Amino acid sequence: MVQSYKEISAMAQKRRDDALSAFFPIPGIAEDSLPQDLRSYPRTSGLLTQEELDIIDTDAEALLEKIKNRTLTSVQITSAFCKASVIAQKLTNCVTEVLFKEGLERARYLDEYLERTGSLVGPLHGLPLSLKDSFITAPYPSSIGMAIHANIPTEKDAVLVNMLRDLGAVFYVKTNIPTAMMMAETTNRIWGETRNPIHKGLTPGGSTGGEGALIAMKASPLGVGTDIAGSIRIPSAFCRLYGLKPSFGRFSTLGGKPSIPGQDFVYAVCGPMSTSLGAVKLFCESVLSDRAAPWNLDPKIIPMPWRNDVIQPRGRRLRFGILGANDGTITCHPPIERAVSIVANALKAAGHDVIPWEPINHREIVDLLNESFDELGSDAIIPVLEAYKEPVFGSMERAFSACKKGIRKFDPEKLRQMIVKRNQLQTEYLNRWMATKTDTEGPMDGIIAPVAPSGAPRLGMGETVDYVGFTAFVNLLDYCACTFPVTYADKSIDHPRGKEWTPLSPQDKMIQDDYDPEFYHGAPVSLQLVGKRLEEEKVLEMVEIVADVLKKTTYN
Amino acid sequence: MVQSYKEISAMAQKRRDDALSAFFPIPGIAEDSLPQDLRSYPRTSGLLTQEELDIIDTDAEALLEKIKNRTLTSVQITSAFCKASVIAQKLTNCVTEVLFKEGLERARYLDEYLERTGSLVGPLHGLPLSLKDSFITAPYPSSIGMAIHANIPTEKDAVLVNMLRDLGAVFYVKTNIPTAMMMAETTNRIWGETRNPIHKGLTPGGSTGGEGALIAMKASPLGVGTDIAGSIRIPSAFCRLYGLKPSFGRFSTLGGKPSIPGQDFVYAVCGPMSTSLGAVKLFCESVLSDRAAPWNLDPKIIPMPWRNDVIQPRGRRLRFGILGANDGTITCHPPIERAVSIVANALKAAGHDVIPWEPINHREIVDLLNESFDELGSDAIIPVLEAYKEPVFGSMERAFSACKKGIRKFDPEKLRQMIVKRNQLQTEYLNRWMATKTDTEGPMDGIIAPVAPSGAPRLGMGETVDYVGFTAFVNLLDYCACTFPVTYADKSIDHPRGKEWTPLSPQDKMIQDDYDPEFYHGAPVSLQLVGKRLEEEKVLEMVEIVADVLKKTTYN
Repeated sequence: MVQSYKEISAMAQKRRDDALSAFFPIPGIAEDSLPQDLRSYPRTSGLLTQEELDIIDTDAEALLEKIKNRTLTSVQITSAFCKASVIAQKLTNCVTEVLFKEGLERARYLDEYLERTGSLVGPLHGLPLSLKDSFITAPYPSSIGMAIHANIPTEKDAVLVNMLRDLGAVFYVKTNIPTAMMMAETTNRIWGETRNPIHKGLTPGGSTGGEGALIAMKASPLGVGTDIAGSIRIPSAFCRLYGLKPSFGRFSTLGGKPSIPGQDFVYAVCGPMSTSLGAVKLFCESVLSDRAAPWNLDPKIIPMPWRNDVIQPRGRRLRFGILGANDGTITCHPPIERAVSIVANALKAAGHDVIPWEPINHREIVDLLNESFDELGSDAIIPVLEAYKEPVFGSMERAFSACKKGIRKFDPEKLRQMIVKRNQLQTEYLNRWMATKTDTEGPMDGIIAPVAPSGAPRLGMGETVDYVGFTAFVNLLDYCACTFPVTYADKSIDHPRGKEWTPLSPQDKMIQDDYDPEFYHGAPVSLQLVGKRLEEEKVLEMVEIVADVLKKTTYN
Repeated sequence: MVQSYKEISAMAQKRRDDALSAFFPIPGIAEDSLPQDLRSYPRTSGLLTQEELDIIDTDAEALLEKIKNRTLTSVQITSAFCKASVIAQKLTNCVTEVLFKEGLERARYLDEYLERTGSLVGPLHGLPLSLKDSFITAPYPSSIGMAIHANIPTEKDAVLVNMLRDLGAVFYVKTNIPTAMMMAETTNRIWGETRNPIHKGLTPGGSTGGEGALIAMKASPLGVGTDIAGSIRIPSAFCRLYGLKPSFGRFSTLGGKPSIPGQDFVYAVCGPMSTSLGAVKLFCESVLSDRAAPWNLDPKIIPMPWRNDVIQPRGRRLRFGILGANDGTITCHPPIERAVSIVANALKAAGHDVIPWEPINHREIVDLLNESFDELGSDAIIPVLEAYKEPVFGSMERAFSACKKGIRKFDPEKLRQMIVKRNQLQTEYLNRWMATKTDTEGPMDGIIAPVAPSGAPRLGMGETVDYVGFTAFVNLLDYCACTFPVTYADKSIDHPRGKEWTPLSPQDKMIQDDYDPEFYHGAPVSLQLVGKRLEEEKVLEMVEIVADVLKKTTYN
């Protein structure tokens, strides 16, 4: 007889909680005593020493420098992040597997190695690095929020995990995700729900939501997520992080746990997330170095090492397309629209060119992506949940219905039609992008766009309404994109839309009706910058330019 | 009522023959008067002037130089290749669509442009370039050997066609292919069968067999083919050409006519074919230049410009895996085995390392490729042939039976299993390749392998037996490979296998029984050099090294 998901969940949570409290037992925290923004708690609680607080406030590059010049050891740094992640777990429920023991052992080894040899094993020598639950660090289970996997030991580390370890990274924690990684929030029947540290009434987004919460809590200097419809960008935006969703073929997903093994109509990709753009870039440079040579380890990786200074001539005027208040299907909440204006105005003021970018075909693109998940994958997920009697969440119920429809029309012709349609949409989008070239100006360099209709939706909202169209179009196109923080929702200036606003659909109305300036006050507001396929280097360079420009504006 | 394929064929052939004879009517040729090797005919027939003979004997790079320094015009060159292609058609039946008029107009324009401006439009300025019938040059039909397409005007040039034209190429002819490009010989119910100019009793191979015959006849300095299981390499090898099958994502196939639109389990790719390795490289450099930037025209193209001198340090010792007399399924004819020895010995003598390379998993790889064509594509081909009552050839009958099996088991799970299996085979192959690294030597640089069991099988043999396993494993792996000529079959040294030889299967025995030293005497014998995914630059550099080494051997 199949075990119930409840027993499996209890076992998994006990494993986690025992490991956490064995390292750093913390007293109960009265929920009522907590502020809306949880990020101050580590400092105000008195649970961490000043040295530990200083460590978790330091970005990845500076930490590596301190290890290198022996101001700090990897053990000191790893311990601080382990403690911070115990607190983060307590406040946001973001942790799944606890690897403190191995992490600290590895840190000790690296410290001794440096002491003994005077050299570093690699560019990430001694840096703690957190991983989404889907990455495999044997023998720890990789639940992806499903009972079937939750307590099953794994056998072989993912290729990227091995690579990062060889580069010097220290793994200490894996983080929560929604069931099968197929929701834009982070909840499942094994580990429960993760909340947003910046505003505890909000979701951190998903599917890499545990990373989002952990990193926003400063309990990780650098994390790795995956993205098939927005799963890196949504939590990165909701948690004020830089999160890079690359095109397929740059960072290895081989040996990880996919939601739907063998689904390649839309590629799942993985990428870095951090409060520091420098850390994101460091990840890219390290993982795509000639030394790491991932193309020799994973047949899907393109032999294209990371390049610097791809925007030439340096400092040239850039051209940005601006995706406005809606994508043709759903309208953003007022704070998001304001953020788009902030960025567009700041870029203009800095001498860059800003042009409107219409969301032509966005609906067709997103519909096809949703159709493909349902048609090609629902039978790989729903029956497995049903076997363990795991109740299916609202958004998954809506998204994965094909396998319940009884007689289904799926044959090679249908598949081929979908592929032809996908390729045609990709071609049309590229042609439209290149058509922005004029007699005097080059084509558009990137698109500035919202990541979601809201700064981050309220917890539990996915049961009734959700929308990933702002991110998912990038996935079907296999483009790359990076999020960046812009501002916070402000009840004094972000007023609800008035009666003159006409919703595009009942769903659009539901989402807009949910905007309550009082409740959402203080919600994080981030955007994304989208580049063409395999333009990751250019996207990070452009985000750096945008971030610099934003630092100089008074709007921010 | 649907027109019969016979009427359609008559119409297509009349269109072709009228266009050919309008330009260069040639008298009937008595078949009995022809030698086995047809390549001498243009010279001995007296049909071409000495200047024309000199032109068709000159390679692409030298022709371009002559245009540049105004020793020859593009009109002179194009005319010579048009005439040569009329002869080639007469002798081998290799031509489908005739674009002489447009070609000569374009040549005239380019000559005038150079005269007027003193500059070239691009690196291929004025060079005649032949195309497989599947490339679209509107309004000419793109039959791909099927009645349904044979007389239907096309509307929009393929992306690569536009690119090549912008780079200066002159299109003057399209060439024959097998039905739906799905055979390793070149025959169909519209244009009939193409034969091998080097030995008229043999097939030129397929599916790019018309190109193979045309180029071997010196009626084209550079052609473009496509390859999904060997379709560039098989005719290139059978016609003593350098033919590059790239990995997917380098040369655009967008806007061409695919066999099975929407099939992307195994990617069809396109690539150059020529008697000159320099011409093949010129094509790559031109098409993958920053100026041409195909990644801005086709979303499937990787933004990775062509690089030179990728083998570093220059002149270093290389390591080659040698695939021996069989691939675990089929055994080569003796001349092929001899060619492998010639190359291995020559490389050793030149100081390179040569190691055996076992065909592990080759059968699984090829079986999966065949299964995918059948399962994912047979219903896109067979019913269309049946509608026009086109008799299905033997090899296609064997390969495409899935859609006739009545109730078929095809569902998303089956598709996902196939994709998982494919990816696993790719990973295992890469791991095995990298495992050739030793403490003192780097990993294997490339594989030297047969292209087919024979130098080129006798005409019509595909009706009963055929095998593409030597090429198709490269396609499923998405590796790249280039053919190179080695020798000719020689009845005095290539003796049939004796009684001590044990066939691997009845099919293996049939193929080996077909080896008749007398009949095959003079057949071309070529091999391929296989590189990992997206290593096209390295493969061409290695082929250059192999070709240089072969020039110095007495075996050749």
